[in-house]
Amino acid sequence: MLNTSALEEIKKVPGYENKRAFSGAFATKPSGRMAARPVKCVAPGTNKKHSLDYIIDAVGLKDGMTISFHHSLRNGDAVMYQVISEIAKKGIRDLTLSASSLSVVQDCLLPFFESGVIRRIDTSGSRSKLGNYIQEGKLDKPAIFRTHGGRARAIETGELHIDVTFIAAPCCDKFGNINGVQGKSACGSLGYAMPDAHYAEHVVAVTDGYTETPLDYVSIPQTLVDYITEVDSIGDPAGIATGSIRVSKSPAELVISKYAADVIAATEYFHDNMIFQFGSGGMAIATASFIREKMLEKGIVASAGVGGVSGFHVKMLNEGLIKTFYDPQDFDLTAISSLGTNPRHHEISVSDYANPFSASPYVNMLDFAVLSATEMDVDFNVNVLTDSYGKLLGAPGGHPDAAAGAKLTVITMPLLRNRLPMLLDRVSTIVTPGETVDILVTEYGIAVNPGRQDVLDMLKGKALPLTTIEELKAKADKLTGKATPLRQNDKICGLVEYRDGTIIDVIHEI
Amino acid sequence: MLNTSALEEIKKVPGYENKRAFSGAFATKPSGRMAARPVKCVAPGTNKKHSLDYIIDAVGLKDGMTISFHHSLRNGDAVMYQVISEIAKKGIRDLTLSASSLSVVQDCLLPFFESGVIRRIDTSGSRSKLGNYIQEGKLDKPAIFRTHGGRARAIETGELHIDVTFIAAPCCDKFGNINGVQGKSACGSLGYAMPDAHYAEHVVAVTDGYTETPLDYVSIPQTLVDYITEVDSIGDPAGIATGSIRVSKSPAELVISKYAADVIAATEYFHDNMIFQFGSGGMAIATASFIREKMLEKGIVASAGVGGVSGFHVKMLNEGLIKTFYDPQDFDLTAISSLGTNPRHHEISVSDYANPFSASPYVNMLDFAVLSATEMDVDFNVNVLTDSYGKLLGAPGGHPDAAAGAKLTVITMPLLRNRLPMLLDRVSTIVTPGETVDILVTEYGIAVNPGRQDVLDMLKGKALPLTTIEELKAKADKLTGKATPLRQNDKICGLVEYRDGTIIDVIHEI
Repeated sequence: MLNTSALEEIKKVPGYENKRAFSGAFATKPSGRMAARPVKCVAPGTNKKHSLDYIIDAVGLKDGMTISFHHSLRNGDAVMYQVISEIAKKGIRDLTLSASSLSVVQDCLLPFFESGVIRRIDTSGSRSKLGNYIQEGKLDKPAIFRTHGGRARAIETGELHIDVTFIAAPCCDKFGNINGVQGKSACGSLGYAMPDAHYAEHVVAVTDGYTETPLDYVSIPQTLVDYITEVDSIGDPAGIATGSIRVSKSPAELVISKYAADVIAATEYFHDNMIFQFGSGGMAIATASFIREKMLEKGIVASAGVGGVSGFHVKMLNEGLIKTFYDPQDFDLTAISSLGTNPRHHEISVSDYANPFSASPYVNMLDFAVLSATEMDVDFNVNVLTDSYGKLLGAPGGHPDAAAGAKLTVITMPLLRNRLPMLLDRVSTIVTPGETVDILVTEYGIAVNPGRQDVLDMLKGKALPLTTIEELKAKADKLTGKATPLRQNDKICGLVEYRDGTIIDVIHEI
Repeated sequence: MLNTSALEEIKKVPGYENKRAFSGAFATKPSGRMAARPVKCVAPGTNKKHSLDYIIDAVGLKDGMTISFHHSLRNGDAVMYQVISEIAKKGIRDLTLSASSLSVVQDCLLPFFESGVIRRIDTSGSRSKLGNYIQEGKLDKPAIFRTHGGRARAIETGELHIDVTFIAAPCCDKFGNINGVQGKSACGSLGYAMPDAHYAEHVVAVTDGYTETPLDYVSIPQTLVDYITEVDSIGDPAGIATGSIRVSKSPAELVISKYAADVIAATEYFHDNMIFQFGSGGMAIATASFIREKMLEKGIVASAGVGGVSGFHVKMLNEGLIKTFYDPQDFDLTAISSLGTNPRHHEISVSDYANPFSASPYVNMLDFAVLSATEMDVDFNVNVLTDSYGKLLGAPGGHPDAAAGAKLTVITMPLLRNRLPMLLDRVSTIVTPGETVDILVTEYGIAVNPGRQDVLDMLKGKALPLTTIEELKAKADKLTGKATPLRQNDKICGLVEYRDGTIIDVIHEI
């Protein structure tokens, strides 16, 4: 958790003077106006298609500006490297890289950091070489780690001003209409790119699926797209999507998933026409599969699914167990194909999904959300950004957003991983505040947040392995020996932003 | 056309000080920023559904503010009356009524004008009692008549600031998601309401199709909607949509339609994968039916249709003669049903359709557009707003937008109507400037705008009843006697805005 001296240190950084400390999941009451978008005007017949070289000049990209990318190509992305290489050739330097997230594949960008082309990072996650670079304290100023909803908020409120966004576009017509469901590099929903497309000063489509024919499925319309550039490949399909994400086969994870389904089904949130979100890890899918069985038993359906989609979600959609799906991202080929063909599978902007500064994002619909955790603590705080040593390896993603929106937030987490305890006195990095987390399910039992007496009441008399967070903590300590808090370097190299823009924690140098 | 003294008079009106005169269809080169939307924040679990009485207080509606409505319920609308009645009960006065258009059904609003609840009008069209009221000079200041694209531009740039928009919503779920394709008052595309939903300070859904279940088809998302109110009926289905718009049966109109199809087919704009717009009057549908025959003969298809949709467009979409449709409004029940079921039939915002201040609206895609006219003149200027006596009866609608966007703009118009000439030295009101109009087709022949020598070259040697605009004018004069220009009252009661916000003409009192 952010302490006062850390906040003082942060406020000394140019551009971070107005940062505020997190003070509660719903404490910020925003007012005022969003950013004003640039007025554009493109005459009929204007050719938008040019070389990247031409476009970088045309948009007036200069030293110190902010460029942005979406991460829906995941670990297959080839766009960031191609674009930044071209920018580097022109001698442009000192840029901020804003990406909706950064994967291992972006290790290839390291030379551009070392040569000063990029000096600052604004992202959801970072790991591997770029993660190390951040934690070696080599950036101009601390990196910002945002939630998916928080990034949309930052863009729309003008806190994150993007000069040029380069949108990896699996399919783009000559007018500038874009979708992610067609072409050799189809990645599915382009929900992450939508806030950038609406608010960046200049919008460039980078495509390997160019067509003269107007698209039959438009995710980002031509009215937002200034330029189009064609490249041989925007990414490696093998890294963009796996064939299909499967149910976990780990016995411990299956126990946890079964418990999670049992505890959810024992609450009032499990009902006909419920609305839910499951993550797309093996354990989340396993939980979904147990929930599916209970739905079939009771003869009930979900009126909507919200959040990232995998093949298992599609199966339930096709079975009629989920009536409709609001989808900001797709995790596997089944999901990508479904988005392009199933009329009940709807692409939504990540802003509509999770931006807290709107007349209610889709996460606010959730009856329950099943989420994972890297670590948790006795106050139900969740870490999904760093490992137990404080090293960057994950991303806030939509975790804090879904947890805040859902009526019931259930965390599935093994109590131990590699003989290390995952339940601690204090997580190394707070990403999702405990006040928005209701239940922890482990292989050793289920603990309910004492703040949710109503949930405890619902579970009374139900045959569930209920325990308390303290008992789980004691169990973990007994099995592994009490974890010694790690002594961390004090130097701040990253800010963990809560979805409302306040700072909930920091990342330290290693 | 606007003269200097009229402009001076306009500039004296409070709020109109910055009005500029039209100076060319593409002369305005906008810069700067769009309006900044209000930041919103609605906590999970918040109930949005209240009585209209409660909502009017909650949004803080006050004297002098601007309220807005869409006109997609056409002549069946019952929302404006219900909302304004409720506002009137509270003693609120001096409002501006901004509607995407006004129909005869809005005659029922006259008492609210007479009692001072509404004092100003901002619309596309007005007619009947409200039209008379405007032309009796009874408003606070001249009404503004905008094109569909121009209204979106005015809203997005902040020129038209809307305090509260009341969206007639055929279907609305408890979260605030809206569509126009379900419910007893289904009206199809809600394209006209979208700019208001994005930019108004407060957004209220007024629905007779309320549901607890999240919508499977969302036109306007919950992230934009602040309040929901349920009413018995938002409109009379008989006035919302006709059963099906049919091909004209008038012999003269069929001749014109046949000529129009012939001349289009003789240009380079008639080709495989072309993109077109046909209006939805009987003559436009007749032209479409002749074009359809030619497409079948040549074995070619349209890659996209743009603009308002009727049953005939749907027929061509279903036959595969149009591959995809971008639809801001629906004219009949067949079109409404198709929008809700055909995945190649896409709802678009009127801003995406026609707003000239974007990175290219969909009208810019058009190879050709077939449009109607109330009057035309020898400079190819078109009037679709007033009759020959200068009396309000139509609306600019999307006419100037499509004409400016299309590579080839074809006007189908009988040379005479009720023994009056429709081709004049000067139209009584200029709505669409002649520089954006390429061909006039009448029952007495086809005239090409001399500014389009390229089109004249394309038509050389083709068996077409080509003539000149002067010859057509002479023919009309010979048949009817030369029309005497009408002496009009000089007092200005309305401004005709071109899509870029400049004033192209004025409406005079009668």
